[in-house]
Amino acid sequence: MTAGELRGVDPRTGERLEPAYPVADRDEIDRACALAWDAFGTYRATGLKVRAAFLDTIADRIEALGDTLVDRVMAETGLPRARVEGERARTTGQLRLFASVVRDGAWLGVRIDPALPDRTPLPRPDLRQRRVPLGPVAVFAASNFPLAFSVAGGDTASALAAGAPVVVKAHPAHPGTSELVGQAVREAVAEHGLPEGTFAVLHGHGHDLGTRLVTDPRIRAVGFTGSRGGGLSLVAAAAARPVPIPVYAEMSSVNPVFLLPGALRDKGAELGEAFTASLTTGAGQLCTSPGLVFALEGDGLDAFVDAASTAVGAAPAAPMLTTGIRDAYDAGAVRTASTPGVTTLAQGPEDPGIAVAGQPRLFLTDDETFLTHSFLQDEVFGAASLIVRVRDRDRLDAIVQSLEGQLTATLHLAPDDAGDHALAAGLLPELELLAGRVIVNGWPTGVEVSGAMVHGGPFPATSAPATTSVGTRAIERFLRPVAYQNVPAALLPEDLRDGAAGSPA
Amino acid sequence: MTAGELRGVDPRTGERLEPAYPVADRDEIDRACALAWDAFGTYRATGLKVRAAFLDTIADRIEALGDTLVDRVMAETGLPRARVEGERARTTGQLRLFASVVRDGAWLGVRIDPALPDRTPLPRPDLRQRRVPLGPVAVFAASNFPLAFSVAGGDTASALAAGAPVVVKAHPAHPGTSELVGQAVREAVAEHGLPEGTFAVLHGHGHDLGTRLVTDPRIRAVGFTGSRGGGLSLVAAAAARPVPIPVYAEMSSVNPVFLLPGALRDKGAELGEAFTASLTTGAGQLCTSPGLVFALEGDGLDAFVDAASTAVGAAPAAPMLTTGIRDAYDAGAVRTASTPGVTTLAQGPEDPGIAVAGQPRLFLTDDETFLTHSFLQDEVFGAASLIVRVRDRDRLDAIVQSLEGQLTATLHLAPDDAGDHALAAGLLPELELLAGRVIVNGWPTGVEVSGAMVHGGPFPATSAPATTSVGTRAIERFLRPVAYQNVPAALLPEDLRDGAAGSPA
Repeated sequence: MTAGELRGVDPRTGERLEPAYPVADRDEIDRACALAWDAFGTYRATGLKVRAAFLDTIADRIEALGDTLVDRVMAETGLPRARVEGERARTTGQLRLFASVVRDGAWLGVRIDPALPDRTPLPRPDLRQRRVPLGPVAVFAASNFPLAFSVAGGDTASALAAGAPVVVKAHPAHPGTSELVGQAVREAVAEHGLPEGTFAVLHGHGHDLGTRLVTDPRIRAVGFTGSRGGGLSLVAAAAARPVPIPVYAEMSSVNPVFLLPGALRDKGAELGEAFTASLTTGAGQLCTSPGLVFALEGDGLDAFVDAASTAVGAAPAAPMLTTGIRDAYDAGAVRTASTPGVTTLAQGPEDPGIAVAGQPRLFLTDDETFLTHSFLQDEVFGAASLIVRVRDRDRLDAIVQSLEGQLTATLHLAPDDAGDHALAAGLLPELELLAGRVIVNGWPTGVEVSGAMVHGGPFPATSAPATTSVGTRAIERFLRPVAYQNVPAALLPEDLRDGAAGSPA
Repeated sequence: MTAGELRGVDPRTGERLEPAYPVADRDEIDRACALAWDAFGTYRATGLKVRAAFLDTIADRIEALGDTLVDRVMAETGLPRARVEGERARTTGQLRLFASVVRDGAWLGVRIDPALPDRTPLPRPDLRQRRVPLGPVAVFAASNFPLAFSVAGGDTASALAAGAPVVVKAHPAHPGTSELVGQAVREAVAEHGLPEGTFAVLHGHGHDLGTRLVTDPRIRAVGFTGSRGGGLSLVAAAAARPVPIPVYAEMSSVNPVFLLPGALRDKGAELGEAFTASLTTGAGQLCTSPGLVFALEGDGLDAFVDAASTAVGAAPAAPMLTTGIRDAYDAGAVRTASTPGVTTLAQGPEDPGIAVAGQPRLFLTDDETFLTHSFLQDEVFGAASLIVRVRDRDRLDAIVQSLEGQLTATLHLAPDDAGDHALAAGLLPELELLAGRVIVNGWPTGVEVSGAMVHGGPFPATSAPATTSVGTRAIERFLRPVAYQNVPAALLPEDLRDGAAGSPA
């Protein structure tokens, strides 16, 4: 029985791309999960050096694809070459970063409490703790980062680093990209003599494949980047299993930006231009796109609004990833535009030369209207943003209290302005409860892959606020601690023996 | 409107104890949550030294209660003096351990990636990460550890250490104990000038108070120790909130013990006696009580069974915590006893001098019967255990695969026996996937409070397998990471400034 097939579409031209990729049927899904489970014992027992080398090889193999990969990504996503090359560098850099994380061994979380046989009233046993992987991980690739959040993106890299086999549900918007990268990973699996089930890519549309993966008893954790609806349905399916599993879903964020009076006064127009550059990056198809701007009334606010309006009005249309995403973007923008109290400030020019084009859009409203219509804080995925004129500090506080959990919150302030400083000092403790990352005098787009990054945040930005999907801490999502009490040295896992790499000095 | 009152009962005599304690009504619950939320900002901003001193003071105040507390615990629980004094020492030791954890600052998880302004193609911003508390925590006290898992037990100590205000739902089986300890904590709150809402104790029966707490929007995390049914209902209520919150529920475990042939051959009878001592500790009312023993056929198995039967048959009845717990224990034991293929080996003598008495019970069955009746692995809370004679390694594997997630798994082996060693080497990777703690040649009862301890494990042992409710890592449950990007030094949280305590060298 065949489950159908799917093809990529070039959003620049609307052309359906060859070849077609077969959609995974039940047997294939079952086989991938069975192989992943079979591989788990062997894969998690690989030494840290082998596992690190495997991750490095994946990066090498992806680079070796050269322009074949870059061209395919461009064709399937409409993203420009520089962005695709940059994302490839981020992806391979991320794999190599996790290789170094694996080698370092600190992620094992080794803790050793030596026995105290003479302690009274009771002796203390020898206790050693390390982290072990949860089991095979299902990774749901995102549409908007066809490399960095896709087949060999951050979820896959961190799960493989943790010792977990991975079954990827490819995003249907870039199947050819997924096949190329998947093949690179499979070659690395073979090169290092790892079990076949260490890694698999499956193609499919909609919820069926996803639900099957999340409810398969051999899948033990889920990484997801996508819409709130999609994430919540996976969370519900995972919670309803006989044995629930964690779902690390990064879902939606409007990334509020707060413009304080001193900053507006000093450089309102400059901020308007910089904001527009952030907003239009990747046609706004970023989870960190600044969808809401709260600007306190005062000198410079009009200059900000004027400059941003001019810049957005002149910003060219760009291909969006799929017609579905473009249609949702247009519908969201129309809902905002037609809300009483909201003014459309600017809309970029049409471009009939692009088949699936997104035009940047900018809206303006006041605090009252914003607080009245809670849907105005819903994510409109694409280059649309709403500027909210805020009368005073009280209104600003009410707005901060009304906001849902976010990936980021950004503050612009004049460093030497006492008023801005006092405002910021009061806001920061609120913003750190609201978001996973707080930015001062910058923009939320551009997510550094490093040890201190947090790409996460309170619900509904993510389903697991204590975690990050970017940066070295992402590995922790796929691990849990185990304590070993009085286990003889000959039977102890190697990581826990006296003097092992990763064990405390 | 009054919501009623409740009284403790002495399980040794059946006497209803004075005074009565008022059950919290809706207004009181609402007030406790409101005060906790109000306190959150101030409490989490306390310096580490103040917070640590506060935890030390709680320990001091509990000790200062002296025999008033010990006598009340004994009256409400029927636990013997030595156990109560030991548990008090564990509780105050735990508070002081978390004070030292707070002072150390490593739990803040500070990570600093300095700016790289000259990096190409893009500069790196200054990024600093620390953990912040989630918000007020609801703690559900357990019946069986009236001090160490109750009002000022591990959940409360670790939440307060994290900077989270705590609202405790006292266990109705020991309201007087809860009031005494609660008063000690309140005095410590006052002594350190902390906001009133830093801590509260509420009394109540059943699900109503619990559901209200877990669904209150100002409660941001839950710690629970108790039954599977109770834990799962809180998990469901928390997941159904508009903004879901984590529930750290420690629920049920039968703590399988595996006896390998060499160990049985060398000291079958000795193991039978040591096992019985573990089983009858605290009338078996421990989450780590050994409820299942899998013994491989061979020399010494009969000696183990005989010695355990003799010891259990001679073990005195002991007061159980409540009539409800005793009735559930008796019912569980009857279900096991009446299962075809199960033999009752021994039952301790009755003791009409104890009002709420539990008699130790020991059962025997074969691998086939065990594998046929999955309910035989349900927890029977109390001093009942089932020995399963296991024919061979294949049967043992089938049994390990059939087991649910556990807090502990224990292996007894003869250190110099090659057969035991080979068996253990094969079993250990399975047991570390099954349980949070793996013990060799010891017993699961007795949980060390230390850095390397894991008191947790796969579902249904807990609802959050990546965490522990005992040991210093328990603090991590109430924290999440936040990244600060380009935040000027003057606005950075103190923990993150260059050279702060807790920051990397």
